[in-house]
This record gives sequence, structure tokens and C-alpha cells, in this order.
Amino acid sequence: MTEVQEKAKRSKVASKKVALVSNDARDFALERIAEAIQANVTDILSANHQDIAEAKKNQLQEALIDRLTLTEERLAGIVQSIYDVIGLSSPLQETVSTNARPNGLVIEEVRVPLGCIATIYEARPNVTVDIAVLSIKTGNSVILRGSTSTIHSNKKLVAIMKQALADTELPEDTISLIESPDREATKYLFHAKEFVDVIIPRGGKKLIDLVVRESSVPVIETGAGNCHMYVDESADVTLSRSVIVDAKAQRPSVCNALETLLVHKDWASKHLSCLMDDLLLNKVTVRGDERARAIDERIVPLLEDDFDTEFLSLTLPIKVVDSVEEAVDHIDTYGTKHSEAILSEDENSVVYFMNAIDAACVYHNASTRFTDGIEFGFGAEVGISTQKLHVRGPMGLPALTSTKYRIKGNGQTKAQPILNTLLH
Amino acid sequence: MTEVQEKAKRSKVASKKVALVSNDARDFALERIAEAIQANVTDILSANHQDIAEAKKNQLQEALIDRLTLTEERLAGIVQSIYDVIGLSSPLQETVSTNARPNGLVIEEVRVPLGCIATIYEARPNVTVDIAVLSIKTGNSVILRGSTSTIHSNKKLVAIMKQALADTELPEDTISLIESPDREATKYLFHAKEFVDVIIPRGGKKLIDLVVRESSVPVIETGAGNCHMYVDESADVTLSRSVIVDAKAQRPSVCNALETLLVHKDWASKHLSCLMDDLLLNKVTVRGDERARAIDERIVPLLEDDFDTEFLSLTLPIKVVDSVEEAVDHIDTYGTKHSEAILSEDENSVVYFMNAIDAACVYHNASTRFTDGIEFGFGAEVGISTQKLHVRGPMGLPALTSTKYRIKGNGQTKAQPILNTLLH
Repeated sequence: MTEVQEKAKRSKVASKKVALVSNDARDFALERIAEAIQANVTDILSANHQDIAEAKKNQLQEALIDRLTLTEERLAGIVQSIYDVIGLSSPLQETVSTNARPNGLVIEEVRVPLGCIATIYEARPNVTVDIAVLSIKTGNSVILRGSTSTIHSNKKLVAIMKQALADTELPEDTISLIESPDREATKYLFHAKEFVDVIIPRGGKKLIDLVVRESSVPVIETGAGNCHMYVDESADVTLSRSVIVDAKAQRPSVCNALETLLVHKDWASKHLSCLMDDLLLNKVTVRGDERARAIDERIVPLLEDDFDTEFLSLTLPIKVVDSVEEAVDHIDTYGTKHSEAILSEDENSVVYFMNAIDAACVYHNASTRFTDGIEFGFGAEVGISTQKLHVRGPMGLPALTSTKYRIKGNGQTKAQPILNTLLH
Repeated sequence: MTEVQEKAKRSKVASKKVALVSNDARDFALERIAEAIQANVTDILSANHQDIAEAKKNQLQEALIDRLTLTEERLAGIVQSIYDVIGLSSPLQETVSTNARPNGLVIEEVRVPLGCIATIYEARPNVTVDIAVLSIKTGNSVILRGSTSTIHSNKKLVAIMKQALADTELPEDTISLIESPDREATKYLFHAKEFVDVIIPRGGKKLIDLVVRESSVPVIETGAGNCHMYVDESADVTLSRSVIVDAKAQRPSVCNALETLLVHKDWASKHLSCLMDDLLLNKVTVRGDERARAIDERIVPLLEDDFDTEFLSLTLPIKVVDSVEEAVDHIDTYGTKHSEAILSEDENSVVYFMNAIDAACVYHNASTRFTDGIEFGFGAEVGISTQKLHVRGPMGLPALTSTKYRIKGNGQTKAQPILNTLLH
């Protein structure tokens, strides 16, 4: 049996235990984990230094190295977020519905853990703790497969977390780390339906597409955000300038940032130059179609794939459109069903846009940057689902759970059975 | 472009229209469909006779031929079930939650259609109408791929339904039938993520496994039921006899029928022979382990794969167990997470079983035969999900929908943006 097979099997066994203990027992385990991380900051940072040294040796990009770097401050943030999760109420054992049938059956739908969650992610050691904590809170076991470029940090963090479970009701196998760098070995998880209940890829589009394509285990797809904003003819100028600059420039590297701006021709002819001042002031490179460039010559020409690109940087393509319908058609063609917005004071345009757009989040007169679990008041950020089944948009704790029906009877049968009447 | 590609593309376009019309417009379309089927009974039966004749020529099994046969009575049943669906309230536009945030954003979660539903199913022409009707009710378009052995019936039914849509707000492409018998061509749907939002296979385990394994489009897995009943030491004798006979013998060919009986050793030694009388009276072939056979010699020996088999017939393997824990372990090993039951008067055993069993439906003192949408009061039977994501157990209309967030603001930004203060 390979490392991955062995760990998948043991994780499934552990999941049954995690599911059956009390919410208090799970919160107690999370407290032990928080304390253990606090008590081992020096060890964690030293393991992380090994990853950083190797990353430098391998000449990884500065941004990637920053992403995999832990500091005392970042660790303090990780610990704080564990306490935040402990403070949330557990969705488990919540009764979703109760249904007393005419035949006397009482059908109760209750919330239960998914079982064993496998997650494949890129070089962010904070995700190691984050996903483990969210999985435990929701009564699941977790199999972690991080990037090989953070293997030292991940091994140390997982060893500390597993040790912290020793004094709790949760088995050590509640948390497993795949240590083998072999990608082919990891693919075992994609088909281990017997042991793994769901796979959550966290990372770039390439990773997510691979998992979706190959996995027969169900996947929760989190993901790419090619987000649009449509500025209607009726849009308020001050509001629009402020919301567009925020959506594009406040933090361009995230999935809910604005990627393409669609502007109604009449608004554009009156206000686009004013908006350009704001965008340039915020160091945004604006590219546009011919109609946009005819209005403001500071707009440079569009490149071929601009409408298809999630820039995650300070580049913004602009397209001038004739109507809200044209805007919706453009979004239908290029959108990734993440977050889309309309800026408008016209009720008809707003209603049409909000209904016709097929996306997790559709905004009216607000920045797309609010698409996240914390801003939605979920208290935790499990990720943002761009799929339509199971969960859509920002995911709270219930996204890591399922339900089951408990049916209580007193001898109900579908028909009157024929029984032997002779006595024994 | 192949037939399948063309139809997938057109179905996606149609789905946008179906989603945007009113609930009344969709119900009106369903009424037209019901009327059209009633008005064309002769034509439908004559097309069905072609399928029956070919099935006989190809020497299909009697049971399969029965399954694909339509009669006036069966067609009347199909029409009645359309009116039943029209009578159900639509889940669309239901507000799932409303959340007013401290920053003034109002986040509303509303129920929306999935989009385009593809379904692959076996030789049951009633499914052709059934799935089309349920899809339309929930605002979706549908691509049907039935068995080639019912192609004449399916073509006729789909032609009639499409024609019925002519006088409605729904486009004809709301319903599409894949006519090509080429299985490889159908597989295009498995990866047509651009057009198809979900695939629902309805049929045997082999078909479902193929779709789950190959599809990168999300799948709703409906399915196999290797259902168990555990008779606890404390189980009431009269209640148990009645419930077991019902679960096994009332209609053995369905997925919620009993497939393996687990009996506590003490109950077995006292009551198994009495139960055997009932089972034999109902023509059940009972096979059992050595301990069962030592109690009643009418029990024949187990065959190797008995515990792994969904018989769908009057065969019942029996295993004698020492405890509720052993019963749960057996079900963990062999169950398909469909429906499992405990017969018991002991609160501890019941609570343990109901919590520990990982299945869509867990019963106490009732027949597993109640696992279906109608019995659950959903008014329609979309199928029974054996997966944990999205929907579990009997599926009502909401299973064919998703949600989206509509967020209304008045200029909210994540941070205070820096704007140009010069006037234009």
C-alpha cells in the first residue's frame, strides 16, 4: 500500500470518530491546536526558513516567496483565526427540517459532516492550518496535499497539530499530510471514492481544471474570477468613480477584483475622461476598444485575449456598449460566474441585469470586492465556489457538511404484509 | 458541428429564456405538453409498438420489454403526473436568506435554475416526459439521451412536447433529444462544461459509474441501494416480522428494498424461525451464514458475493451478529449509503445506529421502502441521491435548482478610494 492509499484509508476511519464526538470535544481539540502553534513559533519559523532558502535557491518569483513566508505576525494571525472559528456555532446536528407524515413517520433532516475532505493547494502554509481547522470544526477528517515548496513548513505544522490532538477525543489521523512529492501518487485521491468524500482544490486555474477533469470523487470548485462592472447610462458619476476604483485598485491580486469594465456609450462620452483621471491616479493601465479610445486618447489599444484574462494586476480593459443587453451578452461570453456588478439608477436596467446574469454574486451599486465569507458575515472563509451544485459563492461552515434523514416510525409498512399466523 | 454539440449549444441558449419567464409561463407550457400527449395517444402507442417489435426481434428480456412498453393506462399516469407537477409551488425566486450587513449592503440569496440539465437514462419512455417536465418546472432546459431501444417512442414524445411549446413563451430548444445511437458521440456531453450545467444519469450502476468516472460536468448520482435492516436484541417480534417482509417482498425490484438482513444472535435464537415462516410464505429465498443455518435449516448457504449484491429480487442473505456495533461495521463495509434501518426497542442502540450510520436515510422501526420523493411529501420524484454534495436522499424540485446572491448597495467600497478632485 502506498503512502497516499494508507493515509486515505486511515483518514476515513478517523472521520467516523470525528463525526461522533461532541461539538465541545471538537472545539477543545481546536484550542489545543491553537495553543500548540503558539508554543512552537520558533520551530515553525525555522522550518519555514528552510522552505524560503530552497525557494531562493530555485529562484522562485518574489511574490511566490512572499506567499510562502511565515512571520511571527502571520502566525499570530493564524492562531487568532483558529479562535475565531472556535467562536462560531457549529452547523452540526442542526435540524434542517422536520416533517411529520400522515402515516405517522417523522422525517427529520439533520446536518452531518461530509466525512473525509482531501485538499490540494499551492504554496501557502496558512492554508494547511486553515483547512484542517475548518474541517475539524465541521466534524470531518482532512488529507492535506500542499506544494512541495512548502513541505518543511507543512510537515512541522501538521506534526504540531497531530501532537496537539493527543490529549483530545480526536484521533491523530484526523489530520494527514501527503509528504510524497510525486504528483502521480497524489492522483490516487482523485478516484479513492471509498475513502474520500470530497476534494477541494485551492489555487490557480490549472490546478482546479486538472482536479475537475480527472477526479471521480466529487469536487468543490473554487475559483477564477473574471469579474465585470457595467456602467449604465443612468449611473451616478461620483458613486461609479468610487466603486470602480475600489473594485479595480484596492487589491487587484484577488479573485473578486474587477477585470473588465463595460461602459454605456452615453455615460462614456460624458464621464469616461473623468474616470480615466481616477484610474491613472491609481496607477491602472487602461486598455480599450476603438470607441473608448476615441473618447480618451490616454486609453491604449486592447490586446487579443484581454476580455478572457483574469489579470490580478493593475490592468483594466474597457469596452463601450450600446445597452445593458449587450453588457449581459459580453458577461455571458467571458464571465466565470463569480461576481458581476451593475452601476445604475434605472430600475429596469437593474432588474434585468440582476435576473439575467448567471453568477454566484450579482451587485447593484457596490464594489465586487465584498464577495468573501467574512464580508458576508459567515465568520470564516472556506473559499468562494464558482459551481452551481452544493454551494455557490462565499462558503461558510455548512459548505463542509451534508445532511441525512432520520426517520422514526412505529412499524410503518408500505403495504399490509402477509404474515404466517401459526404460533411457534 | 456534431448533432450533440449543436443541441448542447442551442439548449444552453434556450436555458436563459426558460430561466427568465414567469412561473405561470412555465406552468402554461406544462399544461400544453399534458394536453398534447393526451391528444396524441394513438401516435405515441404506435411509435412504442415499433420499439416493442424491435425489442422482441432482438430477444430482449421480458422484464425489459415490460419496462419500455407504454399503454393507454400508463400514458394516463404520465399525464396525471404532469398535472401533479403543475400543482406544486415553484421553488424559483424563493428568497433563501436575507442578510443586511452593518455597512448597508443587503445580501439576498435567491433560488435560480441550474441552467441546462443533461440526462442519460435507460429504456423507460416515461422518464423522457418526467425529466422534461421537472426540468421545465424548475426553469431549466433539458437534453435527453434515452436508450436506443426506445428511440421511436422518445422521438415521438419529444416531437409532441416540442410542438406543444410552439404556443408558449418557451423556445422549442428547451427540450432536446439526442437521436444518434453513437455512445462515443454522447460522451461529448460529459465535458461540455460551457453548455451543460449538470448531468443526471438514471439507470443501473454501470451507467452511473461510467458517467461519474468520465464526466467533468458535475453529476448528480442517483442510485444503487444495497439496503440493510438490523434486528436488535430488543426488537419487537410482531413489528419486525411485518417491517422485514414489507421491506423485502412488497416490491423487491426497487432501490429502497431490503437486500441484507442482520440479526442479533439472541433475537435470532428466539425468533428467526418464526420470521422464516413469513419469508417463505412470501416466496423469499433466504441464504445465511453458519450461525443462521444452525438455527433454521431451511436457510441455504450464502454465496460469495451475497453481501455485495443488490439482488432486486426475492433473495435475502441473513447474517447473525453479536452487537449493534458489528451491524454498523457490516453496513459501513457493504452499504451504498442509501437506506438503512434498525428495529429495536432499546434507546441506546437506536441512538448509536442513527448517528453512526452514514447513509441518506436511516430508519428506526419502519420499512426502508419509504425512501422516495412522494412518500417524503415532495410531490414529485426527481430520483434518490446517494451522494453527499448538493442533495442527499429523495430529491424534490429544489434539487434541480441552485442559488445566487443579489447584493444591493448605495456605493459601498472596501476602502476609501483615492479620486481625482479636479473638475472636468
